[in-house]
Amino acid sequence: MIRVAINGYGNLGRGVELALSHAQDMECVVVFTRRDPSALTTLGAPAAHVNEMPDYVGKVDVVLNCGGSATDLGTQGPEVAKLFNTVDSFDNHKKIPEHFDAVGAAAREAGTLALISAGWDPGLFSILRVLGEAVLPTGSTTTFWGPGVSQGHSDAIRRIEGVADAKQYTVPVEETVQAVKDGRDVELTPRTMHKRECYVVAEEGADLARIERDIVQMPNYFADYDTTVSFISAEELARDHAGIPHGGQVIRAGKTDDDVDAAITYQLQLGSNPEFTGSVLVAAGRAVARMAERGQTGAVTLFDVTLTDLSPASASDLRKNYL
Amino acid sequence: MIRVAINGYGNLGRGVELALSHAQDMECVVVFTRRDPSALTTLGAPAAHVNEMPDYVGKVDVVLNCGGSATDLGTQGPEVAKLFNTVDSFDNHKKIPEHFDAVGAAAREAGTLALISAGWDPGLFSILRVLGEAVLPTGSTTTFWGPGVSQGHSDAIRRIEGVADAKQYTVPVEETVQAVKDGRDVELTPRTMHKRECYVVAEEGADLARIERDIVQMPNYFADYDTTVSFISAEELARDHAGIPHGGQVIRAGKTDDDVDAAITYQLQLGSNPEFTGSVLVAAGRAVARMAERGQTGAVTLFDVTLTDLSPASASDLRKNYL
Repeated sequence: MIRVAINGYGNLGRGVELALSHAQDMECVVVFTRRDPSALTTLGAPAAHVNEMPDYVGKVDVVLNCGGSATDLGTQGPEVAKLFNTVDSFDNHKKIPEHFDAVGAAAREAGTLALISAGWDPGLFSILRVLGEAVLPTGSTTTFWGPGVSQGHSDAIRRIEGVADAKQYTVPVEETVQAVKDGRDVELTPRTMHKRECYVVAEEGADLARIERDIVQMPNYFADYDTTVSFISAEELARDHAGIPHGGQVIRAGKTDDDVDAAITYQLQLGSNPEFTGSVLVAAGRAVARMAERGQTGAVTLFDVTLTDLSPASASDLRKNYL
Repeated sequence: MIRVAINGYGNLGRGVELALSHAQDMECVVVFTRRDPSALTTLGAPAAHVNEMPDYVGKVDVVLNCGGSATDLGTQGPEVAKLFNTVDSFDNHKKIPEHFDAVGAAAREAGTLALISAGWDPGLFSILRVLGEAVLPTGSTTTFWGPGVSQGHSDAIRRIEGVADAKQYTVPVEETVQAVKDGRDVELTPRTMHKRECYVVAEEGADLARIERDIVQMPNYFADYDTTVSFISAEELARDHAGIPHGGQVIRAGKTDDDVDAAITYQLQLGSNPEFTGSVLVAAGRAVARMAERGQTGAVTLFDVTLTDLSPASASDLRKNYL
């Protein structure tokens, strides 16, 4: 059994915990938290304060860092890599090279292995972008996101005066998706690619017309998109919009000869974004534990991992049953 | 530049040659043939008889074996691996473990590296089956093929008395595809999953009703499917059915929690089956050349290859631009 520690018990940490319960060859041995460990109700694993981490050296094969990219992972990554093999879901695209270097330096010095930026984007979508271009070098790659909940956009709506609560869905524009798959020439702008659907609970007596205007005209977040705003009750929001679904698709459309098209589509439809992201972190954790066992150290990404290491099946079973 | 030899100049060999013209970091240095080399018109590379292969040792980094699985690759694989690093598209599923062992033994002894069963199925679809199960262990994997031309079924029709020529398309049943994606319970049988569309050129005076009966009742090939037969002229066949399109999709439908669904779909829509298969062989050839350069020997499959080795881009460019 691969012994796993979860570091951070928010949505993603709980998603990882669920995913571990589906992995026959892995077990959750501890959940690290910055809160009072006795306040955590886990699915079964003991909780421990992050300050106790050093006590677990030798008892954990890989730590899955489940903090956020904005504040946690930048410092958490190098710190934890000094003690354990790690996986994180660092998704601040511009800072990925810097994060890779920082985590890699700590891991090399400590003799551990750290995999960064696992999840579905970055993560599975990244894999598919590279795979698509490797097999179809002449063409273009397009990523559509959704239908799914954007936490950042939902938060932006919640900050508007008069808004009690809100949920925002990013939805790909189907005609544009189809045009891209067909290899047709199509203008790709924020507005042609995605639309935004907002479900808003207003405070009593709030000016709904002003709220709607504040949303659809908000620069960066909404102004460049076709945005619809629906006002609903708190009960409706709780009943119909409680989930955190997400998904999207990576399309590689290219040519194998001047007049011969080829299209590759990879699509995810996820009932729960954090649960699925957690599932990818768990598979990555399996690979990291195995690669570290073979002596590999430093920083890697999913680009450096083989399917054989990601899968619980043996190499000969994979050849026999999956080829 | 990675120096590539193509071994066999049929549809697949020509597909590989085209794909090499799209790969900036690879070049075709020779095409090996069992025919008279002077009879070959390549896109530019010299042709040589297979008997001259030993003369090319040291001048070729990887040989892409483009023979057929039924007759060629079983013997070609171990033979060529004695001299060169190789890639093949061996697709006789039951014999893959045996082929892996035979090629692996020859390669280990010679100090070469041989990758077997590249292409899209086996190949990319295999990768996606393993990836889907690794990240979503609770669920089921279903593969649909088509719309596309099945050469074996087209050949079976051509062998019927009174048939001058024929082309058979395998077409997935859309309602079943959708049910699988939605995670609905659906019976998966040959008939519910695929239908077969046949375009037949009959010989003059042939008994069309009897030909149609012979097709739709043919055991294994057609009897278990809903099959439609259309009689067309030789001109129509040449005009409307000259291509070799194919494709299909691998669907992993599962759950991240008891009542939370997740679906992963990987779809290929290929204008030319052999050209796209050739494109995958070329990417695999890049990886093999690099892995062999690092000293790896024996047999491997795409399950043992990293994205970093498949891609022409550098590891740091991949992290910067594709994560």
